[in-house]
Amino acid sequence: MTLREDDIVAHLEKIIGEPENASIKLGIGDDAAVWQPSRSHRSVVTTDMLVEDVHFTRESMGFEDIGWRVTAANLSDLASMGARPVLATVALGIPSDVDVECLARLYRGISACARSAKLDIVGGDLSRAPVLTVAMSAVGEVRASNCRTRSGGRAGNAVAVTGPLGASRAGLDAARGKVTLQGSDRDEALQAHRRPQARLREGRWLAASANVRAMMDCSDGLSTDLARLAESSGVGVLIEDVPVAESARAAALQLREDARDYALAGGEDFELIVACERRAFAHLASRFEKHFKRPLYRVGSLRSEPGLVLADKGVERAIAPTGWDHFKPATG
Amino acid sequence: MTLREDDIVAHLEKIIGEPENASIKLGIGDDAAVWQPSRSHRSVVTTDMLVEDVHFTRESMGFEDIGWRVTAANLSDLASMGARPVLATVALGIPSDVDVECLARLYRGISACARSAKLDIVGGDLSRAPVLTVAMSAVGEVRASNCRTRSGGRAGNAVAVTGPLGASRAGLDAARGKVTLQGSDRDEALQAHRRPQARLREGRWLAASANVRAMMDCSDGLSTDLARLAESSGVGVLIEDVPVAESARAAALQLREDARDYALAGGEDFELIVACERRAFAHLASRFEKHFKRPLYRVGSLRSEPGLVLADKGVERAIAPTGWDHFKPATG
Repeated sequence: MTLREDDIVAHLEKIIGEPENASIKLGIGDDAAVWQPSRSHRSVVTTDMLVEDVHFTRESMGFEDIGWRVTAANLSDLASMGARPVLATVALGIPSDVDVECLARLYRGISACARSAKLDIVGGDLSRAPVLTVAMSAVGEVRASNCRTRSGGRAGNAVAVTGPLGASRAGLDAARGKVTLQGSDRDEALQAHRRPQARLREGRWLAASANVRAMMDCSDGLSTDLARLAESSGVGVLIEDVPVAESARAAALQLREDARDYALAGGEDFELIVACERRAFAHLASRFEKHFKRPLYRVGSLRSEPGLVLADKGVERAIAPTGWDHFKPATG
Repeated sequence: MTLREDDIVAHLEKIIGEPENASIKLGIGDDAAVWQPSRSHRSVVTTDMLVEDVHFTRESMGFEDIGWRVTAANLSDLASMGARPVLATVALGIPSDVDVECLARLYRGISACARSAKLDIVGGDLSRAPVLTVAMSAVGEVRASNCRTRSGGRAGNAVAVTGPLGASRAGLDAARGKVTLQGSDRDEALQAHRRPQARLREGRWLAASANVRAMMDCSDGLSTDLARLAESSGVGVLIEDVPVAESARAAALQLREDARDYALAGGEDFELIVACERRAFAHLASRFEKHFKRPLYRVGSLRSEPGLVLADKGVERAIAPTGWDHFKPATG
């Protein structure tokens, strides 16, 4: 059956439902959406694109997972600014073998992730495309005093992450059959890969602390993202400890890779990286653990010597960013 | 030469330059951009995606044109809400045969169009993709009382457009070699196709009139877009006159098509469609012409009978939307 573009939009609009935020004055269906920004806050905007056979394959992820994943990536960017989500738009490139039922599943994934974060989908654009392509832009709000960026870090700051790393990479490797995981390792890895959770509550909580100087999300791999935070802040970074997810440890073991290197290179973890006043770190970490019932993991420190350095059994060695880079020649 | 993703971003950032709007607090280079919304206005957001071999080919458009075109499409959506542009983000899918110099040309086109409208490019996302894919999201601002939508039209309203139609379609047909245009026809058509102008000033001016009840842009063809405006407003529309661009007239003649039908089906004109109180139309049109030195073209009226009807030599006949629909089987 051939549907008109307007019929498809109407079908997807039903899945999304009415906006929940009272600030949304006009949602899907006009040339643009309209909202009333908070007078006491700044607005924040981010965009993320997922492309079939680049970020996912239809074997590694279902349509609902793809929808969830692009939404989580946008939410994670808002989280890293300390913002609360408000709204998003979706631009979809649709190949001819993706029918309206597949699109509905994609939108159910978007909707489930968006609702969990009070993010309203307010509009979009549909187009034909050779592969499934989903570009989302999300808007959030943050008090000016709570907005955290990559560039606020200073030499001496403690660096920490909100969770263990590498599980999403392990999930990708498991989905691709590169490793065989079982039981809780498999569950953890596939969940991290297909249904990642943006650290929104953690982001807002951390941003409200004056001792947190810089924040970003860990989306392209800790080594790559830490190098970016350090460069933006005009400092270097000494990595002393890398919290590795259990499933990543199991995957690395099978691949005969160092678990820490595996986690350093693994993208899409969506944990937050924070730089915090050194003296305040212990207190912050203890309050964090009390509040969220899980640790804030210390990774190392910022320092004035530029570069990314790993302390390996007491010996410091310079390392290169090993995370995701779309324009690096493929290494497998 | 292989560049890192961060090097490419830095290169493109230089082309974009520093934000011009004082409200932009943080631009390219962080997880998200930050701005201070106006306290007296509402915010407006839209998104448009261009896909290679769907919206353009590299033969029909240069990289700078593609950048200009996606920016103009977003600006046109803001214009149709009566909004002034503030900022935009760009998500780019880049095939391996598009090098950094091509990207720079794309960004020069984006930047030229954005600067002409005081739109700041504040961020984006880069990915590999099988074909060149550009998804832009733009944010603008409008006073609540000036915001115009598709749904405000009422039976009896006069319907008008801000310019003659069909030139962009003629430009596409000329670029594809379907027609051979010369002189000013060729210039007009290619300019309309490759460097369309969003009617931002016109949109803000029209939205400030209390007699303008509904507004949208003409991006998918007048017949398709008028049907949408009428449906949103819960009315039908009688088309009495279609202003046809000179180049569209020449193209239609070569193709032995009716010029009016050619213009009704031709997308991407980016003129605005307005529904206006009937009694106020003559005065509005005369003020418009005085202000913009070109006419506001009356097209017909909204009426309570649903459907799209064309008055053809005194005889009314129902017509179907003939404009662009991504999901309609191709008709050539």
